[in-house]
Formats: sequence, C-alpha cells, structure tokens
Amino acid sequence: MADKRFTGVIPPVVVADTPDGKLDIASYERSLERMIDAGVDGLFVLGSSGEVVFSTDERRDQIIAESKRIIDGRVPMLVGIIDTQTERVIEQGKRALELGADALVATAPFYALCGPEQVEAHFRAVHEALDAPLFAYDIPVCVHSKLGWKMLARLGAEGVLAGVKDSSGDDVSFRYLIQENAKLGHPMSILTGHEIVVDAAYLMGADGSVPGLANIDPYGYVRMWGYAQAGEWKKAIEEQERLNELSHIFDVTSGVTGYGAGVGAFKTALMLMGIFDSNAMLPPVAAQEGENVEAIRGVLDACGML
Amino acid sequence: MADKRFTGVIPPVVVADTPDGKLDIASYERSLERMIDAGVDGLFVLGSSGEVVFSTDERRDQIIAESKRIIDGRVPMLVGIIDTQTERVIEQGKRALELGADALVATAPFYALCGPEQVEAHFRAVHEALDAPLFAYDIPVCVHSKLGWKMLARLGAEGVLAGVKDSSGDDVSFRYLIQENAKLGHPMSILTGHEIVVDAAYLMGADGSVPGLANIDPYGYVRMWGYAQAGEWKKAIEEQERLNELSHIFDVTSGVTGYGAGVGAFKTALMLMGIFDSNAMLPPVAAQEGENVEAIRGVLDACGML
Amino acid sequence: MADKRFTGVIPPVVVADTPDGKLDIASYERSLERMIDAGVDGLFVLGSSGEVVFSTDERRDQIIAESKRIIDGRVPMLVGIIDTQTERVIEQGKRALELGADALVATAPFYALCGPEQVEAHFRAVHEALDAPLFAYDIPVCVHSKLGWKMLARLGAEGVLAGVKDSSGDDVSFRYLIQENAKLGHPMSILTGHEIVVDAAYLMGADGSVPGLANIDPYGYVRMWGYAQAGEWKKAIEEQERLNELSHIFDVTSGVTGYGAGVGAFKTALMLMGIFDSNAMLPPVAAQEGENVEAIRGVLDACGML
Amino acid sequence: MADKRFTGVIPPVVVADTPDGKLDIASYERSLERMIDAGVDGLFVLGSSGEVVFSTDERRDQIIAESKRIIDGRVPMLVGIIDTQTERVIEQGKRALELGADALVATAPFYALCGPEQVEAHFRAVHEALDAPLFAYDIPVCVHSKLGWKMLARLGAEGVLAGVKDSSGDDVSFRYLIQENAKLGHPMSILTGHEIVVDAAYLMGADGSVPGLANIDPYGYVRMWGYAQAGEWKKAIEEQERLNELSHIFDVTSGVTGYGAGVGAFKTALMLMGIFDSNAMLPPVAAQEGENVEAIRGVLDACGML
Repeated sequence: MADKRFTGVIPPVVVADTPDGKLDIASYERSLERMIDAGVDGLFVLGSSGEVVFSTDERRDQIIAESKRIIDGRVPMLVGIIDTQTERVIEQGKRALELGADALVATAPFYALCGPEQVEAHFRAVHEALDAPLFAYDIPVCVHSKLGWKMLARLGAEGVLAGVKDSSGDDVSFRYLIQENAKLGHPMSILTGHEIVVDAAYLMGADGSVPGLANIDPYGYVRMWGYAQAGEWKKAIEEQERLNELSHIFDVTSGVTGYGAGVGAFKTALMLMGIFDSNAMLPPVAAQEGENVEAIRGVLDACGML
Repeated sequence: MADKRFTGVIPPVVVADTPDGKLDIASYERSLERMIDAGVDGLFVLGSSGEVVFSTDERRDQIIAESKRIIDGRVPMLVGIIDTQTERVIEQGKRALELGADALVATAPFYALCGPEQVEAHFRAVHEALDAPLFAYDIPVCVHSKLGWKMLARLGAEGVLAGVKDSSGDDVSFRYLIQENAKLGHPMSILTGHEIVVDAAYLMGADGSVPGLANIDPYGYVRMWGYAQAGEWKKAIEEQERLNELSHIFDVTSGVTGYGAGVGAFKTALMLMGIFDSNAMLPPVAAQEGENVEAIRGVLDACGML
Repeated sequence: MADKRFTGVIPPVVVADTPDGKLDIASYERSLERMIDAGVDGLFVLGSSGEVVFSTDERRDQIIAESKRIIDGRVPMLVGIIDTQTERVIEQGKRALELGADALVATAPFYALCGPEQVEAHFRAVHEALDAPLFAYDIPVCVHSKLGWKMLARLGAEGVLAGVKDSSGDDVSFRYLIQENAKLGHPMSILTGHEIVVDAAYLMGADGSVPGLANIDPYGYVRMWGYAQAGEWKKAIEEQERLNELSHIFDVTSGVTGYGAGVGAFKTALMLMGIFDSNAMLPPVAAQEGENVEAIRGVLDACGML
Repeated sequence: MADKRFTGVIPPVVVADTPDGKLDIASYERSLERMIDAGVDGLFVLGSSGEVVFSTDERRDQIIAESKRIIDGRVPMLVGIIDTQTERVIEQGKRALELGADALVATAPFYALCGPEQVEAHFRAVHEALDAPLFAYDIPVCVHSKLGWKMLARLGAEGVLAGVKDSSGDDVSFRYLIQENAKLGHPMSILTGHEIVVDAAYLMGADGSVPGLANIDPYGYVRMWGYAQAGEWKKAIEEQERLNELSHIFDVTSGVTGYGAGVGAFKTALMLMGIFDSNAMLPPVAAQEGENVEAIRGVLDACGML
C-alpha cells in the first residue's frame, strides 16, 4: 500500500529571494510556518516552482538545509532532484539525502532526446542508486516527454516508484494510472499538481495534491482534502471554485509569460500579503511590477486575502 | 569583424567511454589527434553530442582538462556550458574558463518556460559574468525555443555574442541572420551544425560548420571548406554528397531513437574504425549492438571507411 | 440559460460502412436505435469519429438525411459542419440545415494558420450566416489551435454560441469555462468529449457529455448522467470505472494508430457485438483485423459485452 | 526522368478579391500575365497561398477556369487539390482535371490523425483515381505531419508521384530526397517552396522552385534559375539576397499573424504596385491596413519596386 506519509496536501514551496539574489530566509520561514500551521501533510522543496533549475548546487543545498531546519520533522520533506540525465540526477539525490530529504522527486531525462526505454532505465537507475522513496514527476511542459501510465504502474508494482506527481495536464492518462494502481494493490501515492481541478482528481481517486496555489491559501486546500475524505463533494467543489477565483492572479497580468507569470504571481501575492518581503526573481526572470502588481492586488482583495 | 579563430570546420567532439562508465582517455585522444591531423580549425568540447548533459560536473571538468592537454593550443577549444538557467550556466562557464576554454557556447535557458525577453537577458548576463567569446547555441530540439535572428544580430552588434552555432534546422532564419550580420559589419561567426547541408550553408555565407559527422570523416569536411573558400562549388557538392552517404549510419539501425541513434552511431562507427575501443554510452542510454552494429558496418564499408 | 435540449448524453455517432465503401444503412440504423432506446439525450452526427472528414459532400448529405429519418424527432440531432475555413463551413451548415439539423457544431479554422482574432471572427461569421444553435468544437488535436475560455465565454454571453463541445484535454481551461459560464447566467451548454473522465466533468459542472464510447455502451453513460444529477457520486465513479475498463479496446491493439486505432476499435467492437455487419473503414484507413480483432474481443468479453 | 514541364520557376499564384469577397478577375489576370511575361515555367493554382482552403468548391472551380483561360497553354498549370482525406481529395482532383489542370498537387491527409501507412495509402489511392501527374505537397505547418523522404522516393520510383513540392522547412530531409531521387534515375521533379533559400536548394540539386514571392518579383526568380543552370553561383546568391530584402514585407507588420501576415503582405504589395485593385482577404482574415500598409510600402520603396 502507498506510504501514508505521502498523501494529502503537499505544496511545492515557493522560495523567497532578496532583491540582490540571496535566499531570504526570514520570508521563506514565515511561508513554511504558515503552511505547516494550516495543516498541510508535507512540503515539496525544489520543485519546478521552487527555483530548482535557477539555483546553483550550492544554493540548492542551502534551500534544502534551511527547509529541513524549519520543518523540523513536523511533516515529510520531499525534495526535487531535477537535472538533465541519470548521473546528474543521482548526484543531486545523494546530496539531498545527506541533507535530510524524506523522499525524492525526479523527472524524465531532458535536453537529450530519449525514448520510453531510456526513461524507464533512468528511473530504475535512480532508484537503485538512492535509498529513499522515489516519486516520478510527470511534467511534459518542462521535459517535453510524457510518462506513460503503463510504465508508471509497472515501476510502482516493482517497488521502483513510491508515487507519481502528475503535472501532465492529461486527465485521461491520470485516471488510467489511478485505476491501474488500485488494481495492483495501491503501491503508489498518486498526486495531482493541477491546483485548479483538485476536487475532480480526488473524485477520481487521487491520494493527494501538490498545489502551487497552496502557498497563497493553504487553508483552503487543507479543507478541501478533508471534504473529499468525508465524501462531502458539494463543499469540496465550492472550496475549489473559491480557490479558482484566487488563481486569476495568473491571468490578470500582461507582458509576462511562463515562469515569470506563474511563480512571479505567487511571489507578488505573498509580498502583498506581507509574507514575503520582496517578489524578487532569479535571473533571467524579472520581478513583476507596476500595473501587474496592482492587478494581482485586485484579485487578492476581491478574494478577501488582504 | 568576426574572430578568425572561430571559422572553418569545428567538430563537436564525441566522447569515448569504457563499458563501466569511465572516460576512455586513450580512445578520446586518438580521435582528437586524428581530427587535428586532418586540419580542423577548432574543436567544440561538451556539445550536445559530447555527453555534456550526461556528465556530472566532475566529469565535465575531466573532459575539459583532458581536451586541453591533448589539443595543447594547436586549435582553439570551444566549450559547451550547457545548463538549465542563468546562474547555473555562469557557474559552468567559470569552471570551463579556469580549465582553459578559448570560447564558451551556451543555449537558451531550458526546463522553466521563458519568453524572448528572458532569453535575451540570459545571454547578456552570461556575457557580463564571463570574460570570453560567447557563442549562442541555437538548438530548439533540445531546449524547445528558437533564437530569433533579430535578437541574435542585435546581441552580435553590441558585442554580447561572438558567434552563433545554428542547429535549429531553420534555414530561412539562418539566411536572414547571415545577411543581417553582414550588414552590421560581420561581428559574429555564424556556424552551421547541420552536417548534411554544409555546402549550402557555405553558399549562403556561413563562416564555418560544426559537423558531428566530422568525428568520422574530418578529412571530407576540411576539403569541403577549402572548395567553398575557393568557389569550387561542384567539388564541394560532391564532397557533401559523399559524406551524406556516410551519414546513413544514422538511419540503418532500428529500435534506437534520439541520442542513442545519433551519438550511438558515431561511437559505433568509431569503434568499428578502430579509433574507439568501445561504443559504450552513459546511462540511461544503451550502446548499440547486434544487427545495428552490423548495419553501421555495412554503411562504413560501402563508403570505404573500413 | 443553456438550451435544455442540449444537455445530458449526446453520443457522437459512429458510421457503418460496407466493405466496398458504401454507407451500411441497416447497421447504422441498428446502432442509432439502440442508443435512443438506451435513453440518450441527443445524437451528434458527422463528428470527428463520424467520418466527417473522410466523406464527400454527397456522402455527408446522405448521412444527415438517413440520421434524420431514423431519429425522427425523438432526440435532437446535432450535425458537425467540419471544414477548413469560414466560407466552406458556412456552406456545410446551409446543407445541414436544409436536411434537418437541430444544431450545428463547428471547429476553429484549420490548415491555414490563424490567430485568435480570426478564430473569433470565424465563429461570429458562421453564427451570422446560419440560423441555428451553434456549438464550438474545441479539438486541438485535429485543428491545432485551442479555443480560449475567455473567448468562448464572451461568445456565449453575446449569443453567438449555444454551447461548447470540449475535446481539448485541457481540464483547467474547461473548469474556468464552466465557472465563467455560470457567472454569466449559464448561456451555454458545456459538454465534455472526454469519455474517460465524464464523472469528473459532471462534478465540475458540465452540462453533459459527448462520449464516443457510448456507441458501445450507451446504457452506462445514461446511468452515470442520472447518478450525477442525483449527486450519487460513488455510483457515478463506479460506472465510469467500469466503462474505462471497456475503453481498453483502444490500447490492446498494435500497429494501428490515430483514427484507425480509435474509431477502428469502435467499429470492430460494434461488429463483434452484432450491431454492425462489418468494421470497414474509409480510405486511407484500413479495417482492423486478425489479432487486433481478437484483442478487442477479449476486452468485450471481460467486460461482459458479448 | 522527371517531366521537363515541371522544372524551373512555378509560382503559387496569389488570388485577387474584391472587397465584397468576389474574385477580382481583372487584377488576377494582370498578375498572371505579368508572371508569364517574366518567363516563369509554370503556375501553381490553388496552393496554400492561393486561398484554396478559404474557397468553396464553386469558387475553386471559378479560379481554375479563369486561370485556364488566362494561361491559355503558355505554361503548365498545376492545381492544388487540398482537402482533408482521400475521397474528398479525389473529388477535388476530378473537378480540376475536367477544368484543364496539367498536374495535381495533394498534401498528406489532415484533421483526422494518420500514421505513415495511411499517408502512403492515400497517395496511392489518389494516383490510382486520377489520370494526371501527381505532386506530393509536403507542408507540415498546415497538415501537421512530415512526408518521409524514403516514402517519397519509393512512390516516385513506382510512378505514383511525378514530383514533390517541399515546404517542410527540413533541408536535411530535402537533401536526402534529392540524392535518393538521383540514384533512382531522377523520376521526380523536386521543387522547393522556400523562397528565401532557393539558391541553396538549386545548389543541392532541386529541379525548381515554387516561391510565393515570385508573385511580387517574378523577374528575379527567373533570373536566379538561369544563373543556377549556368553555374553562376555568385550571381544567384546576389539575386537571392536582393529578393530576401524584399521578403521583409512579411516581418515589418505588427498585430497580424499566419496567413494574414504572409498572404496579406503579398496582396498588399500587389495593391501598392498597382497590380491588384485591392488587398482584400477572404473571411475570417482581415485585409492589412494603416501602418502595416505603410510599412510594406517602405520595404517596396527601399527595394525599388514602386
């Protein structure tokens, strides 16, 4: 059966920076404390929205070490070991484990083109080299290949994977994976990264969620998980719909795209809510400013978050 | 005017490994010596076909150091500083310069989604942080964004870029870039990475080429550059057509894809030609074997390379 | 408020052919009668799985006329007017209306590249030219552009669109559309085409579904709609999971892809179930045969459909 | 050997419309006469830039009939029979032949997803049904699949295809096709649609070109073909570079994309040059106006075309 430590709401934590590019530890600590207070079930450090690919190895180590200190064993800490190919991923994993990761999260290889055989060999090699629960992170928008549900189920059944974090946007594949995982005795935790349709993912049988928006409103996602567990679908839907209104911080801005629009909106909201001191981004991404900040303020205000 | 050190034939060097994943220095040295003997104008270390994304930082350092030792100043050494985003790329660049790189080659940021503004900011930041000629490596098949020719020309005119290595497969954009670079006083070296149509790239005005296939037949590419310089287009075409027959080592295999098919074919050919001791690949890619090796032998034989 | 005629289960009807490429009217009639008997709320003729792009105009007319005759007003008949650009789509629409369509279903323009302004102008022009409820068919896998939910909501509010058939696979956009449509007073019927996750779509607030798999088991989809209306989510999920097992007729075959794998599996299943006389496909697609037919028989058997 | 009627410069003709959407025969005739006077070797009617997918069948017939009347046998007339799948393409082909087409040009099937087997079966079926030289039109940007060079060569060797019009942007595949066609005894005419790199295509061995820009400057393309035939590559390059300056009519506009930017620029240029009475486009595309028209005028002026 899937490891119970890895179910429920596990936000991918957004990192706070100072305007000169240093880790802003005080701001970061406020945000993590707030999510733990809200009752999240785990924290995912160095995910795609956690600056993992923008951070040098030294900085990655600092983020893991500070997270470990702050979390202090209250909830499990999952750590993203995102790098291009197998040997580099394993190296990231070794350092993460030395620094106290409770579980590791790896994507398919990227940059060099691989077929499905290489992707499967990659997860097997990473699992073999690292003594910790391993999650497959399915995020084709970043790595440009989709993890097949049949392969994921096979790796789960064999004990290679402890779970899957699905940010693929492919709800059909997600559903097949959930049904197959159940048939196999539920070896994996299947988590959705799609913060806008978490209620539907729970309905389908997801074991939890990894919603970036929980950095802004962890309380709502914690409540929704409770409603889903209790089968109170009407309340779950209402909570999701409320959170979706808040999610328009992503689309009220203009002239920003990709990471700058998404994580940029998170940081700006956290700044406006007094949790982060700054909405600074790491190069080459610029912080949101001017009318975009005001537009995000408008959404937060309308949602009663200020 | 474009730096004359970076024109002509600059092969992206394929790396030799032992079956247990170590750098096979003796094989690697044989291959580099052979290319220098053939008269290549430079060597590009840690390019996409040079295992850059498969190598840990430690191994990258080893490859650069050994290359430096072998090349010994006879031709310029360009080094790929391929990593996900700006700070990580700069860190790769610093180490490469300490180890003796003559020029650096960086792609657009990848994994996290960026718009053109971020890509331009990225190259400016990398240039500012690193005191060496910087080449932009346009390789959308790996990084999933195309470098716009107007941006490249602008960065060339301002001295940010010393050149472009084009592996985009977009010959229209390549042509516009060449014409614009000429109008601006030819500040950049424009190199093509498309080994199959190098003659045509020279006709359009390219300053050189970065052909992976020159690992197999450097002599042919060196001759073709000479013919093009002399305006002997008929001979250049014949040379290219001969090399293209040899390039079928890429497509006579079956069941292998992507990096395993491309670089795998290079390594297998070098092994069959007695230059590499092994055609081993780094994880998660498997070496070619059995009928695929025989198919490649057949192509080499038909082309008189054995 | 959304037109009540266009809610619930509206299968996209699969067409029966004779082996020599003629419409097999007897088989087609059996299938339509079976779906109407099962209690479907409407039928969608000449959808993507209804051979629309494989059929000449003459054949399209025949399919509409026969469908009209068979349906005989018992449920509404929606007709796909799929063609490349505005004037051709309008022409398809005029003929469909003359032949008795109750509503029309059009995609974004395709083949020639268009931006969002052209797509919006297209739907406005089609609506203006044709006096019937118009559905936007969002199917990027076929037309290679995604319909933005803000545009769809705007066209709904203005009375241009009566509804949306969503086959985009983008559940986030689908959710935003449902919430926005609700805020605007629910002018449109929002239907999902994703047969595997219909329960989740109903949970989100979808007004109905257009499941191809309802050609095989209309009873299950009709029951699921009832459960969802009654808030009996546990039963809805169980029904969906059962239908999903049946859906493996799509992925037990080998050597067939795209339309041949999808619609080919539908036709083969209908043949094995005795509803169609043949599983013939129109050129250039070949009918499934041999082991693929047996594999589909195995799935049907395991699901108690034989 | 390739049919000599289908070599050299064969422009895809741009169609003239009146502002109320009628064919502007007088303007169209001026443009065709001008191209024939310039010495083009053929004319390609109803290509992607010839409004084929925007035109109803009735209008397509009118365009073919008027073209036939105007051309009057002076050069061969190739006609695009662009439609979604096999039966519809054959129907377009029958009508085109009745109206006097000398050769037919068909793409891969589109809208419904097909694999390479279906694409090959499609060309075989179209060839079998239509008694005329058949060209394969390789245009993945519109049909979203690439025609493999091995398949094209095979179909050429068997007499299914008389030639290929390559608008794929894949110069590597194009080169392989040319070499393979030569080895097979040159059964096909291989034509490039990439107007910006025609000189390079001729160097590689292309049998001709189908440049949209020849609607604006047919004289330049005719001269370039002559230079290439004579091996005067320096002159060919200069001609191409001059034409490329003219091609910036595509990228000096803003707020227009795709077909509206490309064919819109052609029509606007022809209007400014006094050849077309209007730059009207068919729905849903709007004609260029205001500053965009002035920007195009600026390019034409700088190139001495006014």
